[in-house]
Amino acid sequence: MQIHIAGTGIWYPKETINNEEIVSSFNSYVDHFNNSNKDKIESGELEKLDYSSTEFIEKASGIKTRHVIDKKNILDINKMMPAVLHEDESKLSIHAEVGIKAAQVAMKNANVTSSDIDAVILGTSHAARNYPSVAIEIQNELGISGYAYDMLVGCSSTTFAINNAVSDISSGLADTVLVINPEISTPFVNYTKRDIHFIFGDGCVATVVSKNNTSNNSFRVIDRKLITKFSNNIRSDWSYLARAATDEKSYEDLLFYQNGNSVFKEVCPMVAEFINNQLKENNLDSTDIKKFWLHQANARMINLIVSKIIGTNDFDTSLAPLPIEKFGNLASAGSMFAFNLHNDLEPGEKGLICSFGAGYSVCSIIVEKI
Amino acid sequence: MQIHIAGTGIWYPKETINNEEIVSSFNSYVDHFNNSNKDKIESGELEKLDYSSTEFIEKASGIKTRHVIDKKNILDINKMMPAVLHEDESKLSIHAEVGIKAAQVAMKNANVTSSDIDAVILGTSHAARNYPSVAIEIQNELGISGYAYDMLVGCSSTTFAINNAVSDISSGLADTVLVINPEISTPFVNYTKRDIHFIFGDGCVATVVSKNNTSNNSFRVIDRKLITKFSNNIRSDWSYLARAATDEKSYEDLLFYQNGNSVFKEVCPMVAEFINNQLKENNLDSTDIKKFWLHQANARMINLIVSKIIGTNDFDTSLAPLPIEKFGNLASAGSMFAFNLHNDLEPGEKGLICSFGAGYSVCSIIVEKI
Repeated sequence: MQIHIAGTGIWYPKETINNEEIVSSFNSYVDHFNNSNKDKIESGELEKLDYSSTEFIEKASGIKTRHVIDKKNILDINKMMPAVLHEDESKLSIHAEVGIKAAQVAMKNANVTSSDIDAVILGTSHAARNYPSVAIEIQNELGISGYAYDMLVGCSSTTFAINNAVSDISSGLADTVLVINPEISTPFVNYTKRDIHFIFGDGCVATVVSKNNTSNNSFRVIDRKLITKFSNNIRSDWSYLARAATDEKSYEDLLFYQNGNSVFKEVCPMVAEFINNQLKENNLDSTDIKKFWLHQANARMINLIVSKIIGTNDFDTSLAPLPIEKFGNLASAGSMFAFNLHNDLEPGEKGLICSFGAGYSVCSIIVEKI
Repeated sequence: MQIHIAGTGIWYPKETINNEEIVSSFNSYVDHFNNSNKDKIESGELEKLDYSSTEFIEKASGIKTRHVIDKKNILDINKMMPAVLHEDESKLSIHAEVGIKAAQVAMKNANVTSSDIDAVILGTSHAARNYPSVAIEIQNELGISGYAYDMLVGCSSTTFAINNAVSDISSGLADTVLVINPEISTPFVNYTKRDIHFIFGDGCVATVVSKNNTSNNSFRVIDRKLITKFSNNIRSDWSYLARAATDEKSYEDLLFYQNGNSVFKEVCPMVAEFINNQLKENNLDSTDIKKFWLHQANARMINLIVSKIIGTNDFDTSLAPLPIEKFGNLASAGSMFAFNLHNDLEPGEKGLICSFGAGYSVCSIIVEKI
């Protein structure tokens, strides 16, 4: 059976924050903190905070701008987070809202309507609530029959969800599955931390996976390969358990944090070896891959991984696109953002989608333009 | 290809709370509340709280006892919730801890070891954290290779996870999958609410799904059928978004609540019709089903659904077991708890596992003892 990525759609907010703006806000916060805590800093009770800089951010990550849902409140040093509303039954979930927008574009690009779709799988790094599943809410809004559910695998939530769609189709449970990956990241970012304040942007990608070749820009799924290997180096711990927890922790203690250097050192070789093995198993040479759509966490990681696969660091960004420059880290949506924006392959040419991140988790999908 | 439920395992805490105990605690709280707020109640500013009773609980739900992780603190009217710890990297997640215990029993019963397992899928109604996926933590602790992820579909999280295991095996991605469903529910229960204080217990079930017939108590999966249909009648809204939310809501506003009467009226006919259609599609008569392992939310719902399927309410509980009496509502783990405790079928005999709940979500799996 042939299974296709028949179409994708992306959504992202209009507002952008560039590095100058985010550094200016952060450095104002640093000034304010250091001034307000002058005595405690002098007595050694508190540590003086250091400035961030655009050079540091670009060197560390390759990020130049990020699209966000609420620029004003993120940059306001008295807020430093976007304003959102609690989930409740009176309104659409923010994840559903952006998911529907991306899904409508993906369905149009895949040339399918709601009645063609048998299931909705939503994968995200951060669940918007426990239940009802946001996938079911989107299913309802789009008038789709069948089944729907949410899944959580950190930054591999998008590729793992596409993989689940392939399994369901392959097993005969569905013909066409809508995969939706909202990543509304800015509410979990601690904008007072120099090492993470610049990383994330908000966005959403949707993908139509189908056994039917419905569009004129379909990619056949040739192979998929998944692995997970536990690590504490990227964590986001907040959950319903916090209500009853007796040990004192702040919200900030329990949201996203990472040991970036360890992640870099451990994940890059792991992913490169993983992809090399997959290529071998499929009797493919790295030169057979015309495009690497990789997880957009860090431009240096992407370039290092690709250089380890192709054996040289002399390659053009067109081989491994870097939407991270414009969008920041979009959590699990990054690799399919890259796919959506840079999929101008010729029929018969192959490309490789690969996520990697919290878990650790890796999922690599080889596709061929038909 | 034949795919089997090769073995299951359950875990539940030792401590139990019976109806007399939970009513006594609740009524003490009511007395305390009414006395402390005497003036406001007399002036009409606050409403007087009503007592609960063992008769009310048994009539409404069929529940007689529930197993819980922390009896003392749940019954203490100054606490009314179990004491847990925040998730962090220094220790196993509570979901992983109980998941491992259930998994070890399931693996033993299925006669498989870690090296036989290709994937771990964890489904729960309430995620213990965002990432790393608890499934990956369990995978690591048990020394399992391959991939792992978490999924969220309310009270159908167990059956949907088993369904995903079947899809992955059927598609060739895995031979044997370990499905784990921790339901540590008591931290999300508002024990001050008369209509919900008695419902939930804590527990975990694990299921080995395999293309190999590894044990002498295997059940072949004959058919699986899933549907979701959006409803706001069962919600649990707490998430990472709450940090940045600007509308005022308490933790209690955002945790589990339901419109029980609407759920009863809408879900019972929906599930009965769904199962009847599945039986027809499989050329089976309701009398071909020797055991109905249904979601354990409410004994009256189970009895009503079965009576609608078999055409009479004159049947023994052995046809549709009610572990809810002893364990309370175990969220998504209920139907497979019933399966685990009551699977004494003869070879060739068929049974039906069916979840239903928040979403709404329904998943029905017909199995045959081999």
